[in-house]
Amino acid sequence: MSGSTFGTLFRVTNFGESHGPAIGCVIDGCPPGLTLSEADIQQELDRRRPGTSRFVTQRNEPDTVEILSGVYDGRTTGAPIGLLIRNTDQRSKDYSEIARQFRPGHADYTYWHKYGIRDPRGGGRSSARLTAPTVAAGAVAKKWLAEHFGVAIHGFMAQLGGIEIPFESLEYVGQNPFFAPIARTQELEQYMDALRKRQDSCGAVIRVIASGVPAGLGEPLYDKLDADIAYAMMGLNAVKGVEIGAGFASARQLGSEHGDSITPDGFATNNAGGILGGISTGQDIDVRIAVKPTSSILTPRQSVDVEGNPVEVVTKGRHDPCVGIRAAPIAEALLALVLMDHALRQRALMGDAGLPAME
Amino acid sequence: MSGSTFGTLFRVTNFGESHGPAIGCVIDGCPPGLTLSEADIQQELDRRRPGTSRFVTQRNEPDTVEILSGVYDGRTTGAPIGLLIRNTDQRSKDYSEIARQFRPGHADYTYWHKYGIRDPRGGGRSSARLTAPTVAAGAVAKKWLAEHFGVAIHGFMAQLGGIEIPFESLEYVGQNPFFAPIARTQELEQYMDALRKRQDSCGAVIRVIASGVPAGLGEPLYDKLDADIAYAMMGLNAVKGVEIGAGFASARQLGSEHGDSITPDGFATNNAGGILGGISTGQDIDVRIAVKPTSSILTPRQSVDVEGNPVEVVTKGRHDPCVGIRAAPIAEALLALVLMDHALRQRALMGDAGLPAME
Amino acid sequence: MSGSTFGTLFRVTNFGESHGPAIGCVIDGCPPGLTLSEADIQQELDRRRPGTSRFVTQRNEPDTVEILSGVYDGRTTGAPIGLLIRNTDQRSKDYSEIARQFRPGHADYTYWHKYGIRDPRGGGRSSARLTAPTVAAGAVAKKWLAEHFGVAIHGFMAQLGGIEIPFESLEYVGQNPFFAPIARTQELEQYMDALRKRQDSCGAVIRVIASGVPAGLGEPLYDKLDADIAYAMMGLNAVKGVEIGAGFASARQLGSEHGDSITPDGFATNNAGGILGGISTGQDIDVRIAVKPTSSILTPRQSVDVEGNPVEVVTKGRHDPCVGIRAAPIAEALLALVLMDHALRQRALMGDAGLPAME
Amino acid sequence: MSGSTFGTLFRVTNFGESHGPAIGCVIDGCPPGLTLSEADIQQELDRRRPGTSRFVTQRNEPDTVEILSGVYDGRTTGAPIGLLIRNTDQRSKDYSEIARQFRPGHADYTYWHKYGIRDPRGGGRSSARLTAPTVAAGAVAKKWLAEHFGVAIHGFMAQLGGIEIPFESLEYVGQNPFFAPIARTQELEQYMDALRKRQDSCGAVIRVIASGVPAGLGEPLYDKLDADIAYAMMGLNAVKGVEIGAGFASARQLGSEHGDSITPDGFATNNAGGILGGISTGQDIDVRIAVKPTSSILTPRQSVDVEGNPVEVVTKGRHDPCVGIRAAPIAEALLALVLMDHALRQRALMGDAGLPAME
Repeated sequence: MSGSTFGTLFRVTNFGESHGPAIGCVIDGCPPGLTLSEADIQQELDRRRPGTSRFVTQRNEPDTVEILSGVYDGRTTGAPIGLLIRNTDQRSKDYSEIARQFRPGHADYTYWHKYGIRDPRGGGRSSARLTAPTVAAGAVAKKWLAEHFGVAIHGFMAQLGGIEIPFESLEYVGQNPFFAPIARTQELEQYMDALRKRQDSCGAVIRVIASGVPAGLGEPLYDKLDADIAYAMMGLNAVKGVEIGAGFASARQLGSEHGDSITPDGFATNNAGGILGGISTGQDIDVRIAVKPTSSILTPRQSVDVEGNPVEVVTKGRHDPCVGIRAAPIAEALLALVLMDHALRQRALMGDAGLPAME
Repeated sequence: MSGSTFGTLFRVTNFGESHGPAIGCVIDGCPPGLTLSEADIQQELDRRRPGTSRFVTQRNEPDTVEILSGVYDGRTTGAPIGLLIRNTDQRSKDYSEIARQFRPGHADYTYWHKYGIRDPRGGGRSSARLTAPTVAAGAVAKKWLAEHFGVAIHGFMAQLGGIEIPFESLEYVGQNPFFAPIARTQELEQYMDALRKRQDSCGAVIRVIASGVPAGLGEPLYDKLDADIAYAMMGLNAVKGVEIGAGFASARQLGSEHGDSITPDGFATNNAGGILGGISTGQDIDVRIAVKPTSSILTPRQSVDVEGNPVEVVTKGRHDPCVGIRAAPIAEALLALVLMDHALRQRALMGDAGLPAME
Repeated sequence: MSGSTFGTLFRVTNFGESHGPAIGCVIDGCPPGLTLSEADIQQELDRRRPGTSRFVTQRNEPDTVEILSGVYDGRTTGAPIGLLIRNTDQRSKDYSEIARQFRPGHADYTYWHKYGIRDPRGGGRSSARLTAPTVAAGAVAKKWLAEHFGVAIHGFMAQLGGIEIPFESLEYVGQNPFFAPIARTQELEQYMDALRKRQDSCGAVIRVIASGVPAGLGEPLYDKLDADIAYAMMGLNAVKGVEIGAGFASARQLGSEHGDSITPDGFATNNAGGILGGISTGQDIDVRIAVKPTSSILTPRQSVDVEGNPVEVVTKGRHDPCVGIRAAPIAEALLALVLMDHALRQRALMGDAGLPAME
Repeated sequence: MSGSTFGTLFRVTNFGESHGPAIGCVIDGCPPGLTLSEADIQQELDRRRPGTSRFVTQRNEPDTVEILSGVYDGRTTGAPIGLLIRNTDQRSKDYSEIARQFRPGHADYTYWHKYGIRDPRGGGRSSARLTAPTVAAGAVAKKWLAEHFGVAIHGFMAQLGGIEIPFESLEYVGQNPFFAPIARTQELEQYMDALRKRQDSCGAVIRVIASGVPAGLGEPLYDKLDADIAYAMMGLNAVKGVEIGAGFASARQLGSEHGDSITPDGFATNNAGGILGGISTGQDIDVRIAVKPTSSILTPRQSVDVEGNPVEVVTKGRHDPCVGIRAAPIAEALLALVLMDHALRQRALMGDAGLPAME
């Protein structure tokens, strides 16, 4: 149990390394009868694909997904869905130096200390490339949730480095390379171009919102909906913080202002972020995550090698100057996986009748 | 699987309601040979106990724990440890009105929509009282971690409402009713007294630090150490945000400043909060959580009843004006449970030899 | 994860030792709305209770169950159901000799080698007494299955030592101390009386049948319904064999005789024992288990002590001369737990509509 | 959670259908540092491969395995091991008739009732072909167990139809197409040839023995070693019975003859089959399984179609006349998986020092 399975009823088991033969996942527990094709999955993979703008890594991976099982005649059968993505752009090179030293802020150090052995090729298992199977699985969850409950999930950038990005409209998110909900992104482009010149990287804040989520999802005492969302998001590479609803701002609020009033027409506000007592209220689920700056930068850094000797590390190769940029579709996928899992858990407990808001 | 079990190898199964006959938990997976008495557990329970100062709920519960199993001759045997805490201060009263209306910001609404039935007595299953068994289980984990690796875990208040609390020293934490690491707490006392007069409640930020944690704990891809910490903390009643290391501040950092340099003597800084790639580095694990203001306040609030009719809700009874105050020992317990679970997972994978830092 | 939790969605976590303060369990995942009282559980516990005839152990335990949580106003709430049974007949005695030597055929030897520590009081955790919480949890599952699908589960004795017991009628099962489906049990009584005089013990075969089980329960590839039944039954103390349907006799059958023909009115025979491809067919689930003779006998046996020195062991105390006798209600409970768990799993996967036979 | 994952710490997630693009599995939790190549796995796959004699199905599948991940530089890294086997011999044909009717004794009927949809190509998910990934994963477990504890696991035929096969020597097992431990197999060959002429199939009994297993494996109360073995074996296609040690014969034994005496040199007998109280004793683990006759036979059978109309079913195609023949290597793999999982569980609980017999 090396922690590579996500979920309890809708279970996604992830495998692969950045520069091995292939990456992929097995989805176990998908209900039968869902129409599903490779195109359904590919469109989500294409959103997180590298090489789509000058602001992300230039690694050129088509990330073509193959469905190996679990689908017959265009519909899921209830059997596990095997998904395979071949790695194609592994440049052969000499990893002997990389294998012997630890990049500051990178998982090199901890993988070495944990396992006593490390696949150094392109970050191995710790590479952000391993989010692709998560996105693929999330595409299946998204489709089921949309068809059954009309759930819609949208991730977008809320902050780039020090620049806070106002929310204008979801329609803009797909129209710029930043997943930013704004019409004009020149400021962001200039910031990123300057950053690249300095050979540095920056952090970001991503926000994800799910609408149409039925009330009643979440299993207290421990497997609360917000707990599982926090698990999912904090487990995403480079994430250092997770907020739901008012988040850290709630520490400064009074009870009289935080608690969302309820009217016959619904909640008046959404400080709760759609979750009370660990269970969905039926309002929008509203999540924000803090993404740290990429550790792989060209600026020389002080570090040590595997024998503990001091070294100066410069990370060459093709890296994202802001991993937060491509995090939006991944965060969407993770939220979809959590909601899907909890929808099945609620159905197990209550049957169809027990999901009154699910229609 | 109603989500009442915490952990994978060191498993804690929690049961009980605020005003039922008893609360408690079963710990399955505790290694044999640990010396353990009820006093070991009681001392941690007493730290989170209500009624200890005028700043917390005046409910008077001795919270006396009984070990039902798993310990023979003063030592754990490897069998499940059953822990029982009888509820003693359930005032009998008429719950018919409470049972029919939803307090804003409270789990009433979601329990009703999830289960179609709700135990209204003192918040039932959603009461913060149910953190007591978590604290009891955490006491066992703490003891094992301390004896095997010298791990020490300290929770304390970092912010009360809008007041940021500077870190002075851990020695002060036990000397004031706020778990504040400062010598003089008059400002906090005045703030709380004013709050009570206004019949309102406030939020807080709690910080928890674990030192002595061996490198190598955490299971990527999904069950990363930080992911499991986020799950644990976000699942704690009233928590709306979790940060590790630089947290949300890392979104504003550059890669050149965020990544912690490594020297032959160790890491130069700790922006990572002791975790890289989801695995512990051997540095301090550093976590911050945002606790929202209590929803149960005397100020009248607008809400609806179970038929959807508008009602004005006033919550009487004995409630914490700042649930964050008692959150410090609970957050410690949760961090202990996560670390304990991951220590056993690492031992399964690597054996003793694979834990080089564990000595 | 010391293996003390049974099930995946309807989870039973068992705790306690034979002579500790208490035994019990926590049921997590019981759907809300089930009417449940202590009497519902007690009646099943009374069926397996010791001291009810001269053919079982004379230990006098009332085995009174207390519901600690999860039930409000006579109905389950969806919260965990804590069940407690106090141990009352622990005779204090000197266990120092027992603690130092291993009874042949008993778990003494393996507990010692596994844990390096052992609770010797009355068999500790390995005592058949620990089946009581399983029976209590099974009572809840039985009630839900009966109310929702009309499932009825009957266990009875099919063989006592070398005596094969023909099936006459279920109505006789409750009318004799052997759970035998025959009107006249003099032969069994004489056999047991002779056995006791010889200070020996004997084995048995128990058969359990569940009728009314909907088609569609079971999760291939691994968590097949028959696989989980085998797990449940083989895990029962003293069981050394499990058969489903034709069982071992099927090894001698031809395909043309084994495969149950299907007619518009249903299956013509039931060699399958109600399970095909690991999934229930809607026919009776038909299971047989072999129970070994009790290892605790008065006849002196050759063994060793904890230092490996040869010793002669005579087990005094109050023991069942045939543990198979009380196994029938326990086997029923185990089958109920498996069916309950798989009913919830099927409901998660398919919703209400996906259980066409469940009406 | 459609039940396609085997194990708790050494987890194998199986995917694929008989005639889909590929079958395979993901092994999560394999300790790092094990030398592993595709050849190590292929040799076990070749033992269960079809088409190797006239007594098994003539389907011609090379079953070539590809390692997709988890191995670097010839050694496991601790990351999940993805294993892929492409299906190559799927003859395209018209499945419309097969899809509409149910073969007696086959999973057609139950898959249809469970999922409401069924992949009819070659048995789909219910095909015995899906044991190949299990065998592949078992090869990894076998290798680890052999290198760490010298565990050796041998499966062989103990009964073919009505013919009991005496145990002569393990050396013969690999020398005949029946996995029979006897020098001369003419009687078996004649029996099978006669069976084929009658267009019928037969059952078998397979025995599996593991030697070198350290004492202390198994997690009472529920996840006992024998319970998990029974789960594994009963979950194997066509298995209807499982025995450990004396098995069903123990029902006829007296306590004085069943309990294995212990001497300073070890146990005198092995009625326990190497397991007491659900925990390994250090003796040979001794398991027997009953395999029913293949349901796919050329003899016409009475059945119904999906609308419930009576039909006569004749199964054409290439099928094993005795699925028991190829069951020996699969049963070995399953036993290896159970032992591996419990070895890691024991290591989690006790560390290296807690496995005194493991050396």
